[in-house]
Amino acid sequence: KRQGFAEIIFGEGKTAEQIISISEALRSKNNQVLITRISKEKAEIVLKACPDFIYNETAQILYWKDQEVSDSNLQGYIAVICAGTSDLRVAEEAAVTAEVLGSKVHRIYDVGVAGIHRLLNNLDEIQHATVSVVVAGMEGALPSVVGGLVSHPVIAVPTSVGYGANFNGLSALLTMLNSCASGISVVNIDNGFGGGYNAVLIHQLAQRGAEKNEDTLF
Amino acid sequence: KRQGFAEIIFGEGKTAEQIISISEALRSKNNQVLITRISKEKAEIVLKACPDFIYNETAQILYWKDQEVSDSNLQGYIAVICAGTSDLRVAEEAAVTAEVLGSKVHRIYDVGVAGIHRLLNNLDEIQHATVSVVVAGMEGALPSVVGGLVSHPVIAVPTSVGYGANFNGLSALLTMLNSCASGISVVNIDNGFGGGYNAVLIHQLAQRGAEKNEDTLF
Amino acid sequence: KRQGFAEIIFGEGKTAEQIISISEALRSKNNQVLITRISKEKAEIVLKACPDFIYNETAQILYWKDQEVSDSNLQGYIAVICAGTSDLRVAEEAAVTAEVLGSKVHRIYDVGVAGIHRLLNNLDEIQHATVSVVVAGMEGALPSVVGGLVSHPVIAVPTSVGYGANFNGLSALLTMLNSCASGISVVNIDNGFGGGYNAVLIHQLAQRGAEKNEDTLF
Amino acid sequence: KRQGFAEIIFGEGKTAEQIISISEALRSKNNQVLITRISKEKAEIVLKACPDFIYNETAQILYWKDQEVSDSNLQGYIAVICAGTSDLRVAEEAAVTAEVLGSKVHRIYDVGVAGIHRLLNNLDEIQHATVSVVVAGMEGALPSVVGGLVSHPVIAVPTSVGYGANFNGLSALLTMLNSCASGISVVNIDNGFGGGYNAVLIHQLAQRGAEKNEDTLF
Amino acid sequence: KRQGFAEIIFGEGKTAEQIISISEALRSKNNQVLITRISKEKAEIVLKACPDFIYNETAQILYWKDQEVSDSNLQGYIAVICAGTSDLRVAEEAAVTAEVLGSKVHRIYDVGVAGIHRLLNNLDEIQHATVSVVVAGMEGALPSVVGGLVSHPVIAVPTSVGYGANFNGLSALLTMLNSCASGISVVNIDNGFGGGYNAVLIHQLAQRGAEKNEDTLF
Amino acid sequence: KRQGFAEIIFGEGKTAEQIISISEALRSKNNQVLITRISKEKAEIVLKACPDFIYNETAQILYWKDQEVSDSNLQGYIAVICAGTSDLRVAEEAAVTAEVLGSKVHRIYDVGVAGIHRLLNNLDEIQHATVSVVVAGMEGALPSVVGGLVSHPVIAVPTSVGYGANFNGLSALLTMLNSCASGISVVNIDNGFGGGYNAVLIHQLAQRGAEKNEDTLF
Amino acid sequence: KRQGFAEIIFGEGKTAEQIISISEALRSKNNQVLITRISKEKAEIVLKACPDFIYNETAQILYWKDQEVSDSNLQGYIAVICAGTSDLRVAEEAAVTAEVLGSKVHRIYDVGVAGIHRLLNNLDEIQHATVSVVVAGMEGALPSVVGGLVSHPVIAVPTSVGYGANFNGLSALLTMLNSCASGISVVNIDNGFGGGYNAVLIHQLAQRGAEKNEDTLF
Amino acid sequence: KRQGFAEIIFGEGKTAEQIISISEALRSKNNQVLITRISKEKAEIVLKACPDFIYNETAQILYWKDQEVSDSNLQGYIAVICAGTSDLRVAEEAAVTAEVLGSKVHRIYDVGVAGIHRLLNNLDEIQHATVSVVVAGMEGALPSVVGGLVSHPVIAVPTSVGYGANFNGLSALLTMLNSCASGISVVNIDNGFGGGYNAVLIHQLAQRGAEKNEDTLF
Ligand SMILES: Nc1ncnc2c1ncn2[C@@H]1O[C@H](COP(=O)(O)O)[C@@H](O)[C@H]1O
Ligand SMILES: Nc1ncnc2c1ncn2[C@@H]1O[C@H](COP(=O)(O)O)[C@@H](O)[C@H]1O
Ligand SMILES: Nc1ncnc2c1ncn2[C@@H]1O[C@H](COP(=O)(O)O)[C@@H](O)[C@H]1O
Ligand SMILES: Nc1ncnc2c1ncn2[C@@H]1O[C@H](COP(=O)(O)O)[C@@H](O)[C@H]1O
Ligand SMILES: [Mg+2]
Ligand SMILES: [Mg+2]
Ligand SMILES: [Mg+2]
Ligand SMILES: [Mg+2]
Ligand SMILES: [Mg+2]
Ligand SMILES: [Mg+2]
Ligand SMILES: [Mg+2]
Ligand SMILES: [Mg+2]
Repeated sequence: KRQGFAEIIFGEGKTAEQIISISEALRSKNNQVLITRISKEKAEIVLKACPDFIYNETAQILYWKDQEVSDSNLQGYIAVICAGTSDLRVAEEAAVTAEVLGSKVHRIYDVGVAGIHRLLNNLDEIQHATVSVVVAGMEGALPSVVGGLVSHPVIAVPTSVGYGANFNGLSALLTMLNSCASGISVVNIDNGFGGGYNAVLIHQLAQRGAEKNEDTLF
Repeated sequence: KRQGFAEIIFGEGKTAEQIISISEALRSKNNQVLITRISKEKAEIVLKACPDFIYNETAQILYWKDQEVSDSNLQGYIAVICAGTSDLRVAEEAAVTAEVLGSKVHRIYDVGVAGIHRLLNNLDEIQHATVSVVVAGMEGALPSVVGGLVSHPVIAVPTSVGYGANFNGLSALLTMLNSCASGISVVNIDNGFGGGYNAVLIHQLAQRGAEKNEDTLF
Repeated sequence: KRQGFAEIIFGEGKTAEQIISISEALRSKNNQVLITRISKEKAEIVLKACPDFIYNETAQILYWKDQEVSDSNLQGYIAVICAGTSDLRVAEEAAVTAEVLGSKVHRIYDVGVAGIHRLLNNLDEIQHATVSVVVAGMEGALPSVVGGLVSHPVIAVPTSVGYGANFNGLSALLTMLNSCASGISVVNIDNGFGGGYNAVLIHQLAQRGAEKNEDTLF
Repeated sequence: KRQGFAEIIFGEGKTAEQIISISEALRSKNNQVLITRISKEKAEIVLKACPDFIYNETAQILYWKDQEVSDSNLQGYIAVICAGTSDLRVAEEAAVTAEVLGSKVHRIYDVGVAGIHRLLNNLDEIQHATVSVVVAGMEGALPSVVGGLVSHPVIAVPTSVGYGANFNGLSALLTMLNSCASGISVVNIDNGFGGGYNAVLIHQLAQRGAEKNEDTLF
Repeated sequence: KRQGFAEIIFGEGKTAEQIISISEALRSKNNQVLITRISKEKAEIVLKACPDFIYNETAQILYWKDQEVSDSNLQGYIAVICAGTSDLRVAEEAAVTAEVLGSKVHRIYDVGVAGIHRLLNNLDEIQHATVSVVVAGMEGALPSVVGGLVSHPVIAVPTSVGYGANFNGLSALLTMLNSCASGISVVNIDNGFGGGYNAVLIHQLAQRGAEKNEDTLF
Repeated sequence: KRQGFAEIIFGEGKTAEQIISISEALRSKNNQVLITRISKEKAEIVLKACPDFIYNETAQILYWKDQEVSDSNLQGYIAVICAGTSDLRVAEEAAVTAEVLGSKVHRIYDVGVAGIHRLLNNLDEIQHATVSVVVAGMEGALPSVVGGLVSHPVIAVPTSVGYGANFNGLSALLTMLNSCASGISVVNIDNGFGGGYNAVLIHQLAQRGAEKNEDTLF
Repeated sequence: KRQGFAEIIFGEGKTAEQIISISEALRSKNNQVLITRISKEKAEIVLKACPDFIYNETAQILYWKDQEVSDSNLQGYIAVICAGTSDLRVAEEAAVTAEVLGSKVHRIYDVGVAGIHRLLNNLDEIQHATVSVVVAGMEGALPSVVGGLVSHPVIAVPTSVGYGANFNGLSALLTMLNSCASGISVVNIDNGFGGGYNAVLIHQLAQRGAEKNEDTLF
Repeated sequence: KRQGFAEIIFGEGKTAEQIISISEALRSKNNQVLITRISKEKAEIVLKACPDFIYNETAQILYWKDQEVSDSNLQGYIAVICAGTSDLRVAEEAAVTAEVLGSKVHRIYDVGVAGIHRLLNNLDEIQHATVSVVVAGMEGALPSVVGGLVSHPVIAVPTSVGYGANFNGLSALLTMLNSCASGISVVNIDNGFGGGYNAVLIHQLAQRGAEKNEDTLF
């Protein structure tokens, strides 16, 4: 396996038929398959051929796990934090990715910086996370505020939510790259998968420790 | 007078000689002269010709007021808020502009969003202002947070402070234009003068009331 | 209440069902609800569930006011000025926002700078406003001209009207940020709501005076 | 001659020595030489070798005319209009280019749109021009207003004057390209020469008439 | 009349009903009406209400002329030159605009720079024009080559034809603004109307001479 | 302490005097001080006032550690990988930051993708790292290749090294944000500090485990 | 023939009717016709009129060859290499273009840099090519790696595949232009035709030698 | 050797000392060393340590060849074509690179498209080249015209020569990427080295033929 655990398929721009054939090939070699950015219509066609797959519509994710994959018993959890309801799809892409890959996720949604008290009301839960994924569109300021409040790594995910001088997410992307808070790194606009995946890599390191990672090399 | 009170000169790109000659012309027709973006070197030459002018080096502002201009007794005050010490020049351009034009100014500096508690510690003073000028570079997230905490108008001033994907202030500018908080409007990058001037216009309206503004038309 | 008066919902990207459920929650806690950027189709569904709401199609605004909200008796008025008929939707978003929030609005439409006399013919009405919202697309030059003619604050709203090197409103946005006239601040492209909301904040300050604003803090 | 009359040399990036040698070659074949964008330092070196050349420092232009070139007796004049004193170098590059190439020029300077009455005070002189060159930086709105006031062609010249979201003249350039007024065409940022040259071509057409231009072909 | 001759309506974004009502208003005050960027569908609705209007589908122009408007007897002609067949709509917008406004037009199409001999084969016709409108997409190099071959004014019209790093016409626009040839000015991307209109203004000047333009002032 | 361990000062744009006074304040409250982006000239002035500070010229970092800070005995190490010698300053900023903050660092330099075998020759050392910081300018492709070869988190740092269509690091930044390899997150252009800091946060998590991080909250 | 062999038609934006009429004209003068960017729908209409044409749907290419065109017996081959399955359309446009124009093509697909071993597994085949066309979207890093592994010319073709900060292929384009590897040149985003065509020109030179190319001049 | 023949050093951003030490290392392993972008000052220091190196100031290239490297006897030649004298440095970087690497070069300079006849006067020499390198700044149209006139490969090199909307070479770069002429590929802005190097690779292929290239693999 290239990335340590499940095989990932980027569903956008692939036909249902292509996804079925790739999935079947991967299922025989791996014990997990995760397909991102797959619409309900395409997922339903795939589900006919692969009825043991599970579809999460909000996250636009279709996945399968070998029954032998034991339940995760990682300590700690990943906080997935988002600013507004329009960022939901991307936040859920991060959260479901992380859950499918075996991490526990706490969702802290609708805590944008324009109403800072909603964020502060959840401070304890955020600060006790092992790692945070912070999803925000429009001005994208949330990771800066979260980054200043926690001492763990923050993965910032800009979204294309907004209009006008938002320029399809450029505004939030630049905000996050320029953050004054330390401990923040950024993935592509709308890349909820990347946010979740990076968080899982870090979560797993926290679990198994620095010395033990060599045995998972490909 | 074109803008209601003092005549303003944009000092950048003008020689000390040009500034002296414009200043002298304006002083004979107005009771205030305000020169922005004037370096110490140029200011010192102008001060030799116009010894009753006053220079503020941090703000890079040179000004003169007729002694007849009575002390401002406006109620309320303008909060000038800034994120970091690098934003000081622009914040002071706003603050000094407002003071020269007759407003009372409270400075609340170094309260960037990466350390939100410093901002919250000053909440009372910020919330009781008549209008706020919020100056920030890098990610430029401060106006969004302030805007969510106050119910008065916020003038946001992006600065060019930063590097890399900051693109000379573009990052902070886009952040502010895309703010989720209501009640925020934006001026040009590094335009501390514009921030201060707009705040004074609003402060004066709050003072004299909506009905009375017609007698100041040019 | 976060912003002093009504609760605002950004309708774009929300389903009618989501809007109904948010509206009902807000109606129980607030005495006004204002939904912007809501299409006729969605509004009609919401109106079935909330028959006491009112829809303004040009402004794409749906709103509700508690009968206890007394009629506004603010002195003065907001001038909403726009350049061409294509800017109408944004101008009306500003005007209706301001009216719903309790301000008196004078509309001065179709007075673009390419026919400066139409603007000058309305000079008196513009100059006596308490605050102006100036909406313009294409070259976006109107706020500069208005700003030079009035001594009150001008909120400039760039629109995405135009084609080619207009780049979806970037042209008008940059024009307004670079205005030579003092007293202008800018909101996001097509953000008529922001223009109207900022104007109301200023109008209310002009009405109740600088000292009295603390009792509306959240 | 390639362009109908004088040979033009773009002085920027050429050494004084290169300019001298090109000038001498051209002088033997043409009856006019016009060198633009040449600094005082370089011009003084060239003038030692070519003492019959004339240098205009504001316009940064060095030129020479054969004594046989008769004085222009074109009817009409070119209006060179500019917004602020910072645009002077570019405006003078346009004006001096036009004068050297034989046109009469009326300068109407410091008539920016933020003080529209200064422009209107010069309306008669502007409207009676054969063609106008309108030079403006910052928001670059002047050509739109002039274009709406005249029925002759307007050549718009954006300048790089400004800061922040001006992006080195991009703001003024986009404004001019998006003008709502008809009859405006645009040259490169800071291209005063192009503005003057185009105006002269049009002025000469107005003088000699449409039928007569074929005898000047190269 | 604002612009000297016909009233122009920008059809895009207006409903057929709006166009009918504006047209009828203008027809009573002017002797010509020209509507640009109007689709076949909308034009057919307008034609039912205004059966004496004429529609040109390629140019997407609908127009009407009072029968009293005498046939143009201008000397000379405008050359409308374009690079490829994809630029046809914009080239025809320029050509038809010029014809409706009374100029004679010579069309020289499909003479892009990648096959320079096709252009050179038409050299005589191009050089004898009074003014040229040069329309080109993709790399937009045609105006530079034409500008070097003629001694009359060239109006360059970039089109959005192309893909990839063309960025919707930005490529052609920048090429034209940076042309090394003198005597070129530029209008907005896809603005065939602007190209034709500017050419007519110049053509009319060439016809009636520089002294006579004052009597057409508005 | 805001970020868990040392206080960080961004040296750029601050005078030596400002740095001295901030450093002294911080030294009394913290057991580490780290100043980034400080030139040799400024560092030498600070060192006179603070002789127990240590300066690393390549990294442009000045730091101080309380003698009580015990030597790090973290397991594992951070790989700092860079493409070319021009990226050295940024790579060293990352490496020295990580070392000062207590991590072991392996430097794998000059292994750009245009000579992939140099990278593959170091594969074992790279794959056994706990976390990698990958620094690259120009095309910025290195993180993608490394990300595909390792199963631990990769922090990508674009640099502004290059010219032309590099646009001051934009090219490398976009490359990294668009990486096809999973497990990569990105910091600002030239932000070596951010790369090192994020790596340390992750390294420490790997060391102390997921459950134990709450006691370091501020 | 303008380009040495077949006539090329750019099918996008042309109607089936236009393509039929151009094809018939060209078929009478040339012995090959190649139409790019033509959809299945349009191709089927053209095929009714021109039944001896052949359509390749993946490449979106329709072509015809005179039976007299002898089979290519060029030595060597062109390697067409691509990163992922989403780049297939562009890669096939390059490959089919090259084949129709008479070159032998080896396809090496799905060898993106995030799994470098797949690329290295094909190293021998890549290194023995005469020239390579390397097609990649998203981060576009593949040409840099290939360029470092071969000593023949590499034509890099960026694709618009990706999302977010990919900006429709800008990311891959900039990556390729900034490549550290020598021997790489770049064509427009998604321009598979250009990649294939350039490779054929080079392949033919390698075949017939440097001295012999003059007899193919137009 | 990585690229088949000489080792190349990018001199910019390296000290003379670094260049000396790299050069000495390479000289012992290779029979050629080529250093690009090295200023006269630095070259003079290097020449003291390496007196058998040769410096070309216009091209800013320093190089060394083992005496055993036999004189090139390649058939054919590379045409290096440039638009204006300001493009000279880049054109010479291409030409000298090609010469040092063993190709014969014909220089055809100062043949910009604004004076197309100068180009056509050199047509025969251009058409008989094996490959052309076409260097142009400002509008960058020259490669399109050349590409339409020749049937051999054209390497286009945009330069940063120009001002205003040239945006440091972006204008010429986009022009070249969007060329309508087939057979053109593009290197980075100001990358004369890349132009020359690619041309040499092609020239050598034309010389040795397609089958023989495998023995030069690294
Ligand atoms: N939503 C996503 N956004 C970005 N990259 C993704 C996403 N989903 C999957 N990927 C990446 O795409 C790769 C699979 O691409 P493919 O082979 O085209 O299916 C995975 O290894 C992931 O690195
Ligand atoms: N720092 C500043 N930034 C932006 N605009 C300014 C600044 N200072 C002055 N201005 C504006 O510039 C005008 C004066 O410009 P000028 O006539 O060139 O001196 C004033 O009326 C102000 O509107
Ligand atoms: N195709 C066009 N492109 C750009 N501007 C146009 C076009 N057609 C008309 N105009 C301009 O738009 C104005 C009319 O705009 P409107 O009042 O919105 O109909 C005219 O006076 C012209 O200046
Ligand atoms: N897919 C393509 N991408 C870019 N240029 C192309 C493509 N296909 C054809 N061309 C170019 O377009 C020219 C034909 O354009 P046209 O005359 O509009 O059919 C050809 O000579 C090619 O140079
Ligand atoms: Mg933190
Ligand atoms: Mg607020
Ligand atoms: Mg004003
Ligand atoms: Mg006009
Ligand atoms: Mg010409
Ligand atoms: Mg990995
Ligand atoms: Mg190579
Ligand atoms: Mg060719």
